[in-house]
Amino acid sequence: MAPQYAQSLRFRLLPLLFFLQTGFIVVFRYVEIEQNVQTKQHAFTNYYAEFQDVHVMVILGFGFLATFLVRYSFSGAGFTLLVAAMAVQWAVILNGVESMYHRGKIGINMRSLVVAEMCTASSLIAIGAVLGKTNPVHLLLIALLEISGFVLNGWLLQTFLKVQFLNTIMLLHIFGAFFGLMLSWVLYRQGSEQQHEKEKIDRKTGLFSVMGTLFLWMFWPSFNSVLVEVDHLDRGRNLRAVYSTYLALAVSAVTAAGFSVLTSPQGKLNLFHIQRCTFAGGVAIGVAMSAVHLPWVAMAIGFAAALISTLGSRYIKPLMLFAFECHDTCGVLSVHGLPGILGWMVQLLLQIADSDDLTTAVRFAVFHICTLLITLSLSMILGLITGFLLKCDFWRPPQNKKCFDDQAFWEFPHLAGKR
Amino acid sequence: MAPQYAQSLRFRLLPLLFFLQTGFIVVFRYVEIEQNVQTKQHAFTNYYAEFQDVHVMVILGFGFLATFLVRYSFSGAGFTLLVAAMAVQWAVILNGVESMYHRGKIGINMRSLVVAEMCTASSLIAIGAVLGKTNPVHLLLIALLEISGFVLNGWLLQTFLKVQFLNTIMLLHIFGAFFGLMLSWVLYRQGSEQQHEKEKIDRKTGLFSVMGTLFLWMFWPSFNSVLVEVDHLDRGRNLRAVYSTYLALAVSAVTAAGFSVLTSPQGKLNLFHIQRCTFAGGVAIGVAMSAVHLPWVAMAIGFAAALISTLGSRYIKPLMLFAFECHDTCGVLSVHGLPGILGWMVQLLLQIADSDDLTTAVRFAVFHICTLLITLSLSMILGLITGFLLKCDFWRPPQNKKCFDDQAFWEFPHLAGKR
Amino acid sequence: MAPQYAQSLRFRLLPLLFFLQTGFIVVFRYVEIEQNVQTKQHAFTNYYAEFQDVHVMVILGFGFLATFLVRYSFSGAGFTLLVAAMAVQWAVILNGVESMYHRGKIGINMRSLVVAEMCTASSLIAIGAVLGKTNPVHLLLIALLEISGFVLNGWLLQTFLKVQFLNTIMLLHIFGAFFGLMLSWVLYRQGSEQQHEKEKIDRKTGLFSVMGTLFLWMFWPSFNSVLVEVDHLDRGRNLRAVYSTYLALAVSAVTAAGFSVLTSPQGKLNLFHIQRCTFAGGVAIGVAMSAVHLPWVAMAIGFAAALISTLGSRYIKPLMLFAFECHDTCGVLSVHGLPGILGWMVQLLLQIADSDDLTTAVRFAVFHICTLLITLSLSMILGLITGFLLKCDFWRPPQNKKCFDDQAFWEFPHLAGKR
Repeated sequence: MAPQYAQSLRFRLLPLLFFLQTGFIVVFRYVEIEQNVQTKQHAFTNYYAEFQDVHVMVILGFGFLATFLVRYSFSGAGFTLLVAAMAVQWAVILNGVESMYHRGKIGINMRSLVVAEMCTASSLIAIGAVLGKTNPVHLLLIALLEISGFVLNGWLLQTFLKVQFLNTIMLLHIFGAFFGLMLSWVLYRQGSEQQHEKEKIDRKTGLFSVMGTLFLWMFWPSFNSVLVEVDHLDRGRNLRAVYSTYLALAVSAVTAAGFSVLTSPQGKLNLFHIQRCTFAGGVAIGVAMSAVHLPWVAMAIGFAAALISTLGSRYIKPLMLFAFECHDTCGVLSVHGLPGILGWMVQLLLQIADSDDLTTAVRFAVFHICTLLITLSLSMILGLITGFLLKCDFWRPPQNKKCFDDQAFWEFPHLAGKR
Repeated sequence: MAPQYAQSLRFRLLPLLFFLQTGFIVVFRYVEIEQNVQTKQHAFTNYYAEFQDVHVMVILGFGFLATFLVRYSFSGAGFTLLVAAMAVQWAVILNGVESMYHRGKIGINMRSLVVAEMCTASSLIAIGAVLGKTNPVHLLLIALLEISGFVLNGWLLQTFLKVQFLNTIMLLHIFGAFFGLMLSWVLYRQGSEQQHEKEKIDRKTGLFSVMGTLFLWMFWPSFNSVLVEVDHLDRGRNLRAVYSTYLALAVSAVTAAGFSVLTSPQGKLNLFHIQRCTFAGGVAIGVAMSAVHLPWVAMAIGFAAALISTLGSRYIKPLMLFAFECHDTCGVLSVHGLPGILGWMVQLLLQIADSDDLTTAVRFAVFHICTLLITLSLSMILGLITGFLLKCDFWRPPQNKKCFDDQAFWEFPHLAGKR
Repeated sequence: MAPQYAQSLRFRLLPLLFFLQTGFIVVFRYVEIEQNVQTKQHAFTNYYAEFQDVHVMVILGFGFLATFLVRYSFSGAGFTLLVAAMAVQWAVILNGVESMYHRGKIGINMRSLVVAEMCTASSLIAIGAVLGKTNPVHLLLIALLEISGFVLNGWLLQTFLKVQFLNTIMLLHIFGAFFGLMLSWVLYRQGSEQQHEKEKIDRKTGLFSVMGTLFLWMFWPSFNSVLVEVDHLDRGRNLRAVYSTYLALAVSAVTAAGFSVLTSPQGKLNLFHIQRCTFAGGVAIGVAMSAVHLPWVAMAIGFAAALISTLGSRYIKPLMLFAFECHDTCGVLSVHGLPGILGWMVQLLLQIADSDDLTTAVRFAVFHICTLLITLSLSMILGLITGFLLKCDFWRPPQNKKCFDDQAFWEFPHLAGKR
C-alpha cells in the first residue's frame, strides 16, 4: 500500500530546508526588533489584531482552502504551513534589503510582518495553480522566487513610477495569479485534458475547504484595510476600506451563487464557485480601494467581480486547459487574476472621472497602464523562468499517477481501513 | 445519480437574487459612511474586534452548526452564507429607515453593522426550525420577512413602551425561535413523525457541527457585551456582561453534559445536547443581562438555562412533533426559545427584587410582561403569515424524499465514489 | 451495536458534576467583579483580545488537537470542553485563595481569567497523556488535582524562591507533561505494547486535528505575550515576546517537517509530527522568554525545540512504552516536556552569559535549578498520587476493548449507516 521511497523529500527537500533555514537564522542576526518607544505601544494596539486576522487568513484560510482535493488534503494544509513559515522569513529579509543597505540592520515591527504575510499570500496564490502536480521542493522554490519577483516589482513601481506602497502591495493578486498561470503552462503534463481520477471534491474535504473560504471571507476587510494609513485629513479611510470590502463581499457571495445556478447545465449550485468566487469582490475592491468612496460603488464592484469570476471558472478554465494546455488547479485566473484586473480598471475609470482636467487624467492613465503592464510582464516572465527551472527531472516531480495524492509524501501507518 | 433539474433554483432563486441584489445596490446609493471624525477612530478601535467576533459567530458559528445533517452539510453552510450576505444588507436598510426619513440618508458605521448582524442571527435562528425541509428561496424569504418583523417589533417596543434599544435587540432569540416554530408548524409535512432516513448525524458532520458550537460558545461574551454602552457612572457594565456570559456559559456546558447523561436511557452523552444546550446560558444571560450584577447569579442562570434546554431537547421536542405536528430540525424552541423566556423571567424577578417601592415594581412588571407578549404575538403571527405565504407550490418546495439532501441543490460531478 | 449501559457516567460522573458545579456556584458568592474604574477600561481594551486568543487556543486548539483518534473524536472535543469549563472555575477559585484570606473576597478580572485559562491548559496537557484510556470522571479529577498542584507549585516558587509570577506560569508545560507522564505510568494497562487497533489516525480526523494545531500555532504569540507586563523602562517587552514566539514557531514548523522526513524509514512526512512538533518552538520560547532578546536566538531555540521534539516523538515515545511501560497517547513528553526543559536550560545559559560577575551567575543558577527540581518533583509526586487514586475500580475505568472508542460514552441513535 505505501508506495516507494519518496526520494524527492529526503534528497531534495531535506538539504534545501536545512540550508535555507540555517541561512535565514544567520541572516536574522542583522534583524532587530524596532524599539521606537514613543509610538510603539500605539502601533501594537492598532496593528496586532489586524495582523492576526491576516495571519489567520494566510495560514488557516489559504491552508484549508487547499484541502478540497479528496486525497490531497494533508498536503494542502501541511505544505501551505511549511511554505508560509519559510516564505514569511524570506519576505522579511527581502523587504528589509533597503534598510540593510542604509542602516546595516533590518528592522522588524508589526507593519513589516503584515507586509511579509501579504507577500506570502501572493506566493500561495501562485502555488494554487500547480497544487497537486508538484512536490514540496517545487512549492518552496516557487514561493521564494515569486516573493522575490513580487518585491522587485513593488520596488520598481515605487522607484520609477512613484506608485504608492499600498497600491503596489495590492497587486499581489494579479502578480500571483499570472505567475502561477505561466508556471502551470510550462509544467503542463500530457494527458491532463482528461480529468485526473483523483482531482475530485469529497463531501468532507469540500466542507473543510468551505471552512477555509469562510475564514478568508470573514477577515478580508482586515486584509484590505490594515495597511491603509490613517492621516489627519481623512481619518475615515481605514474604516471606509473596511465597509467597502464588507459590502463588496456580501454582494459577491450572493452574485456568485446566482451565476453559479445560471450557468449550470442542471440549474444547481456548484461548490467550487461558492468556495472561490464568493471572495472575488474582496480581490477587486482591494486593488481599486483608493478610488472607491461610496458604498454602492463597492457593491457594484463586488457584483461585477463575482460575475466575471463565476463565468471565468465555468468557461475560461476549461478553455485554458484545452486551447492553451494550461491546467489551473485552484482556478487562480478566475479567482484572483480577472477580479484583480477588474479592480485595476475600475480604479482607472474612477480616477479619470474624478480628475478635473484632461492632462491629469491622461497622465494618470498612462502611469496606471504602465503599472499594470510592468506587473503583468514581470510576473509572466518570472513565471516562465521559474517553470523552466523546475521542469528538469533533478527536482523529481511526482509521476502522473501520483498526482493529487497524499500517499506520495505522507506516512500512513496508522491509517484506518483501506482509505 | 444526479436527480432532475432543480427548477426551484433556476426559475425562482435566480430572479429573486438578481431582483433583490440590484435593488439593494440602488437603495445603497442613499447610504453613506459616517465620517463623524472626532469619535470615529475611537469607535473603530472599540468596536471592530467585537464586530468581527459577532461576524464570526453568524457566518462560521451558525453556518457550521447547521452542517450536522449527514447529507445536508453543503447546504447548511452554503445557504447560511447566502442568507446572511443578503440579510445583512436588508437589515442595514431597515434599521436606517428612520434616519432616511429624517435626514434623507442612511448612515453606516460599526455599530449599525453589529446591529445588522444581530438581526441576521435572529433570522438564522428562525431558519433552524425548517432547515432541510425547504429550498433556498424559502430561506431567503423567511430571512427577509423575519428581519422586517424583528425590526418592527423593536421599533414598536422602543416607541410605545420606551424599552431600551439593547433590550429589544436581545429579544432576538425569543422572536426568532417562535417565528420559526410557527413557520415549521404551518409547513408540516405528512409523514414527518417517522424520523426521515437522512435526518441523522454522522461522525464527521457531527464534528463540523461541534466546531460551529465552539465558535459560538467562545465568542458569545462579545455577542452579549458589544452593544452595552459604557457610560461614565458605571464603567464596568461592558466588562460585567463579558464575565457574566463567560461564567454562565461555563456552567451551561457542565450542566448540559450532566442532564444529557441523566435523561439518557443508556446513561450516555448525546452529541445534539452538547452541540446546542451548552450555549443556553449565553442566551438566557443575554436577555437578562441588564439586571444581573453578581457572578454567582449569572452561573445560576446558566445552570437553569442548560437544565430547561436539555430537558426541552429530550422531552418537549418529540412532544411538539407528535402532539402538535411541529417538526423543529435544530430544536430552536429548546435552544433559543425557552432559555430566552427564562432570561426574561429572571430579569423580571431581579428587577422587582431590586426596586424599592411596590409601585415601581408593579409598573415595571406590567411593562415587562407587555414586552414579552408583544414580541411573542408578533413573532407567532408573522411566522404563521410567512408560513402560509410559503406553503403554496409556486415556490416549488423539495419533495419529501429530497428533504435533508444536498443533491437536490448542488452539482456533484466531482464527487468521489458513490457518496 | 450500542454497547452496555455506561455506568461510569450515570453513577460517577453525574454526582460529581452536580456536586462540584453547585459547590462552585456557592463559592462564587464570594467572587466579585473588580470595579477598579480608573484602569479598567484600559485593561479591557488591552487584555480582551489576547484573552480571547488564549480562550480559542484552550477550547478550540486543544479540543480539536484531541480529535485525531479515528473513533474517539467526539470524546476528544467534548471532554476537553467539559473539563475546561470546570477547570476554569476551579482555577479562578484557587488563584483567589490568597485574596480571599486577606480581603474576604475573590476578585475577578481579565488577567485572572487569563491565568485561569493557562492553568486549564496545563491540565489539558496532562490529560493528553492518558487520553482514550480513561473515562470523563478520571479526566475531571485529573484536571482538578493537576490545577491544585500547579497553583501550589507557583505559590511555593513565588514565596520561597521569589520567582516571578510570569516565570512560574510558563512552567505549565513542564508541570503538565510530567504530571501526565507519571499518571500514565501508574495507569498502564497490560497489552498496551501492541498498538491498540483503534489508536489510529484517519484522513478526516487527521484534518480536524491539523485545524486544532493551526489555531494553537497561530495564536501562540498571544499566549506567550499576554502576561508580559509592559513597564515604562522597557516598553517593547510585550512586542518582543510576540516577535520571538512568531519567529520561533516559523522555524519550528520548517524544522519539524525536515526532521520528520529525515527520521522516517520511508523518507516521508509524518502527520503526527506536523501536528505537534510544529509548536515545540512556542513551548521553549515561552519558558525562556525573559532572557531572549534577539530574533535569531529565538529562531535558534525554535530549531532546537523542533529537533528534540521530533526525535522524541520518533524514538523516545516507543522507548517509554517498551522500556518503562508508559503509554503517552498525545506524546506530551516530546511536545511539552522536553521543549519546556530546553527552554529552561536556554534561559539559564543566557542569564549566566548576561551576568557580570560570578556570584550573581552562581546564585542565579542555584535558584534556577531549584525551580526546576521543585517543579519536576512536585509534578511527578502528585502525578503518582493521582494515578494511584484513580487506579481503583471504584471509578469504573473503560475495559481494554472499549479504549479509544466513542461508543462507550456517546449515544449513537442517529448515526448514519454502520459508520
